[in-house]
Amino acid sequence: MADDKKLTTRAEDFSAWYNELVLRAELADYSPVKGSMVIRPNGYGIWERMQRALDDMFKATGHQNAYFPLFIPESFLHKEAEHVEGFAPECAVVTHGGGKKLEEPLVVRPTSETIIYYMFAKWTQSYRDLPILINQWANVVRWEMRTRLFLRTLEFLWQEGHTAHVTHDEAEVETRKILAIYRRFAEEWMAMPVLTGLKTHSEKFAGALRTYSIEAMMQDNKALQAGTSHNLGQNFAKAFELQFQDESGQMAHAWNTSWGVSTRLVGGLVMTHGDDNGLRVPPRLAPIEIVIVPIWKNEEEKARLTAAALKVQDDLTAWTGRGATDRLRVHVDARDGMRSGAKYYEWELRGVPLRFELGPKDLEKQAVFAARRDTREKQSLAFDGLPATAAALLDRIQNDMFQAALARREANSVRGGISYAQFKELMEGAGAFVYAGWCGEASCEAKVKEETKATIRCLPDAEFCSSEAPTTCLCCGKPSQVEAVWARAY
Amino acid sequence: MADDKKLTTRAEDFSAWYNELVLRAELADYSPVKGSMVIRPNGYGIWERMQRALDDMFKATGHQNAYFPLFIPESFLHKEAEHVEGFAPECAVVTHGGGKKLEEPLVVRPTSETIIYYMFAKWTQSYRDLPILINQWANVVRWEMRTRLFLRTLEFLWQEGHTAHVTHDEAEVETRKILAIYRRFAEEWMAMPVLTGLKTHSEKFAGALRTYSIEAMMQDNKALQAGTSHNLGQNFAKAFELQFQDESGQMAHAWNTSWGVSTRLVGGLVMTHGDDNGLRVPPRLAPIEIVIVPIWKNEEEKARLTAAALKVQDDLTAWTGRGATDRLRVHVDARDGMRSGAKYYEWELRGVPLRFELGPKDLEKQAVFAARRDTREKQSLAFDGLPATAAALLDRIQNDMFQAALARREANSVRGGISYAQFKELMEGAGAFVYAGWCGEASCEAKVKEETKATIRCLPDAEFCSSEAPTTCLCCGKPSQVEAVWARAY
Repeated sequence: MADDKKLTTRAEDFSAWYNELVLRAELADYSPVKGSMVIRPNGYGIWERMQRALDDMFKATGHQNAYFPLFIPESFLHKEAEHVEGFAPECAVVTHGGGKKLEEPLVVRPTSETIIYYMFAKWTQSYRDLPILINQWANVVRWEMRTRLFLRTLEFLWQEGHTAHVTHDEAEVETRKILAIYRRFAEEWMAMPVLTGLKTHSEKFAGALRTYSIEAMMQDNKALQAGTSHNLGQNFAKAFELQFQDESGQMAHAWNTSWGVSTRLVGGLVMTHGDDNGLRVPPRLAPIEIVIVPIWKNEEEKARLTAAALKVQDDLTAWTGRGATDRLRVHVDARDGMRSGAKYYEWELRGVPLRFELGPKDLEKQAVFAARRDTREKQSLAFDGLPATAAALLDRIQNDMFQAALARREANSVRGGISYAQFKELMEGAGAFVYAGWCGEASCEAKVKEETKATIRCLPDAEFCSSEAPTTCLCCGKPSQVEAVWARAY
Repeated sequence: MADDKKLTTRAEDFSAWYNELVLRAELADYSPVKGSMVIRPNGYGIWERMQRALDDMFKATGHQNAYFPLFIPESFLHKEAEHVEGFAPECAVVTHGGGKKLEEPLVVRPTSETIIYYMFAKWTQSYRDLPILINQWANVVRWEMRTRLFLRTLEFLWQEGHTAHVTHDEAEVETRKILAIYRRFAEEWMAMPVLTGLKTHSEKFAGALRTYSIEAMMQDNKALQAGTSHNLGQNFAKAFELQFQDESGQMAHAWNTSWGVSTRLVGGLVMTHGDDNGLRVPPRLAPIEIVIVPIWKNEEEKARLTAAALKVQDDLTAWTGRGATDRLRVHVDARDGMRSGAKYYEWELRGVPLRFELGPKDLEKQAVFAARRDTREKQSLAFDGLPATAAALLDRIQNDMFQAALARREANSVRGGISYAQFKELMEGAGAFVYAGWCGEASCEAKVKEETKATIRCLPDAEFCSSEAPTTCLCCGKPSQVEAVWARAY
C-alpha cells in the first residue's frame, strides 16, 4: 500500500522521482533476480490495454499471431554477421537441461529473427505463399548491466512482428505501415507525441537494411526510443535460405521486415505524464477511468452513500454511448477504516484520470464532485446525463494530455542557429531535441556522443523537418547532408 | 498449404493421425529446437480464444494479471523439499549471461511458486493485505525426453494462478472455485466433458497439500489431465516466510493455492473432436465460425457470386443478436485458381464448424447451401433471417459436440464388476475409464501402473461416483477405501 510520504519531486531528482513513483504506485517491483522486474497488477493492467489496442491494429492490417520457441540454437545467431555481433554479447545461455550438459548451447531469445525466418523458409515455396504477416507476444532476454524498471530490464515483454514479402518495395510499405501504427498508438492512446524518422547506420538494428523509429521526449528532455520498425532487406532471407519461386519460375530470396514495442512503453507513459503527485494515466489506457469515493461520517451515511455510489457506477457502466464494447471503467472505493483524503492521495498516485467524490450534500444535489487528475480542476457534475458528461470529460482529458505533452516537447526543441559549444552546454544542462545539420559522417556522430552523450535520434520524416533546411553539420561545420534530431536518450 | 493426401485414420493409428492432423491443419510445426514446437496462426487463434474466455472468468472472480521473472535463482527451488525433488530434474539451467559465467545458476521457470511467494512475502504485512489473487500468462520450460505436439513439449504456454489467504478453508474454497471454472470452460467452451476429483498422493503436485484435476477422455480412451488446481497448504508460505499479522496481532503463515491450464488443451481439443477428415473446432473456440465459398464458372459469375458472398458476410457480421461484443466470425474464401472441392477439403481439415456454399442457383433462391462440419449434414438456408438461423445452428453444433463426446465417454466407461485380469486386458486393448475400488495403498497404485500403465486419474467427486460404491480394491482385493477412476493417460 502507498504510504503518505511525499514523492521526491521531478525538479529535485528526475530519476529518483521515477523509481519512487513506479514502486509506490505499485506498477512494478524489484525481483530477487538482478535486473529482472515484477510487473504488478497496476502496471500490468496498463500493459494489457496497450496490448489490446495494438493487437487490434495489427489484426486490422492483416497480421496473425503465432508463437515461436524461447530457445534458439547458438549457431543460428551466427548465420547473419551483423546480427551476431549485435546480440551475442547480450545473451543468456542455457548449457544444461534435464540434468545433462547440452551438445549445443541454447540462447534465450534476445529477438527472434533467426528462428522465425528459419521457419518461414520451411513454409515458403512459391510467391503464392507470400506475404507472411505474423506477430508474436513474448518475453525476451538481453543481459543488461545497468537496468531501470520498465526502461531497461534483463527480461522484458514485447511484441515482435515478422513478415516476408516478394519485393523490396512491398517490404518497405510494410515497414512504414507499422511505423504509422506505432505513431498512431503513441499519439491516440498514450497521448504521447512522437517524431518518426530513419535511424543512422550506427543506430540501426543489427542485421537491418534500414531502421525507422518513433522517438518521444520525456520530462527531463531526454529522448525515449519507443518503437522500431526494420526493413531487413534480404539479409536474413539469404542467411536462412528463405526463397520462393516467382511468377516467372525463377527462385528469389524474400524480403523481410521486423518491428517491436515493449513494456518500456509503460516507463515512457510514466515519464511523459507523471507529476509530483504521482502517475497520470491517459484515459484510454487506464484500467480504471473513474474512481467514485463515497464519503460518510456515520453508519447510516455509510450505507446510504455507498449504495448511491454503486448506483452511479451502475449507471455509468450500463451506458453504451461509446459503443457496447467500450464501457466506462469505474471503481467504487468504499474501503472502511481509511480517511477520504488518504484515498484521494492513493488514487492520485496511481493516476486514475477522474475522481468522483460523493458526500451527503452532493447526493442531496443529485451530483458528484469531480476532480480531474491531469489539471486537478474540480466541478460538480449532475447525475442527470452523467455518463455522457463523464465520457466527454475523459475525451477532453485525453486530448489535453496530448496537447500538453506536445507543447512541452516543442518548447524544449531547438531548431537551427545553435553552435556546437551552445549544444554541448544545452546537453549538459536542461537538455533538448536539437534539429541541426549532419555531414553524414559516422565520425561526427561518434565525436558528439563521446563529448556530449547525445546521439542522432533520427533523421526526421519531412513533416517534422525545419522549414529551412540546415546548411552545416552541427559538429564539423562542413556542409550538411541531412537534418538530424540530436538528444540524449534512455 | 494442405495437400490432398488422406489423413491416416484414427482406427489405423491414433497417434499418427494426431500428428498428421496437427501438422496439416497448420496448428503447429516442429522447430529446430528439439522438443519445442512452433504454434502456427491456426493453432494460436484457438489458444487466443481459450485465453480470452478463461481470462474473463478469472477476472469475474476477482483475479488480476501480473508478470513475474522467467529466471529463478536455483537456490529458491531448494527451499521446499518436495518441490525441488519434483522439478529440479526437469530444469533448463542458464549458467552464462552477458558473456560471463554466473555466480549462481538460474533455472528457467518450470512453474513459479517459489519466486511468486517470495514476492507475496514482500507485499504482505497484515491480514488486510490478503487475499492476494493473481494470475500470469507465461511460458514455462520442463525438460521432457518424449515430446508430442501440444501435449508434452519442452516449452509450453500456460496460465498459472497464485493466491494467498488467511485460512485453510478460504484457500480450499479458492482451489475448488477454480476447479469449477476449469470444468465450466472445458464443458461450455471446449465441448469436452470432464471428471473432477482429487489426485492421489503419488500423483499430486510436488509441494501441494491436495491437487484436484479435470480429466477428459480422448478418442483412444486414454485420459488427458486437462487442468489442475492445488491447495498448497502452508508449505510454500513456511519456505518463503510468507506471514501476516492476524486480527489478534499474532503472526501466522498464509495459505496458498496455485492452478494452471496450458496449450495442452489445444491437443485435448484435437483428440476429443477430430475425425478422419481433420479437425472439428467447437464453434465458441473457432477463430472462424463460418466460411463462405462463392462458386463460379466464369468471370461474370465470379464477380457476381463473390459480391454476393461478401454481402452475406456483411449481414452476418453486422448482426448483434448474440450481443454486440460477440459478432459472428465469418470468412469469405474467394481464392482464385483453386477448385471449390479443394477449398472444402481444406476448411474441413481445419475444422471450421459451418461452411456456406454459394453458387448461381443458391443465389437465385436467395439462400446458401450449408454444411455442418461435425455431422456433415447439409441444408439450404434462406438469406432471410440468416444471422439468427446461423447462430442457432452454431449453438446446436456446440451442444451436439458436447453430447457426442459425453456419450462416447460414458460408452467407454466401466463401472464395477471387473476383475483385475479383465482390467489388464482392457488396458492392453481398447482402453476405458474404469471406476473401481482402491484400498488406499500406494503399493497397489504402483503395481497397477507397472503392470498395465494405468494410473488413478482421480478420486472422483460425488456426482461422478457410482451409485453403488465398490467394496474391494481393483488390485489387491482388500476392502476398498474409496472409488477411483483408473485409466492410461497422456
